[in-house]
Amino acid sequence: PEPAGARALHAIKVIGAEPPHAVAPSAPLDEVLVEMANRRVDAALVLEGARLVGILTSVDACRLLGQRLAAARRRPA
Amino acid sequence: PEPAGARALHAIKVIGAEPPHAVAPSAPLDEVLVEMANRRVDAALVLEGARLVGILTSVDACRLLGQRLAAARRRPA
Repeated sequence: PEPAGARALHAIKVIGAEPPHAVAPSAPLDEVLVEMANRRVDAALVLEGARLVGILTSVDACRLLGQRLAAARRRPA
Repeated sequence: PEPAGARALHAIKVIGAEPPHAVAPSAPLDEVLVEMANRRVDAALVLEGARLVGILTSVDACRLLGQRLAAARRRPA
């Protein structure tokens, strides 16, 4: 039988993983988010040179937007 | 050979699709977004009774948050 690792790699290939979207730590958050939406990707990798220093996901965007809208609702302009 | 339709259904089963997260049109957007983040789902189906009237996705959340942050950056409080 195929080893588990080989199966996992095969599965990722089938799903068609794209090259990750990478941004610098200095990238403006608003531009990163709009670019994620335009590319329809779920995550942006924050790279300092070749070092991974963070991951921004669409789950983060849902939570942050939800929190901001909730705050705006409690305290209308 | 297996018909294409059967293969597609099989693939969806393998990936492990969960029951969709459904909300009413009257649901507050902030609560829907936080709940999407808590459940780590990418979409909420907007159902009016049994009728699908909309889909809110995490891509929408990325775009909307990006636009709001960009507007706030142009016009600081």
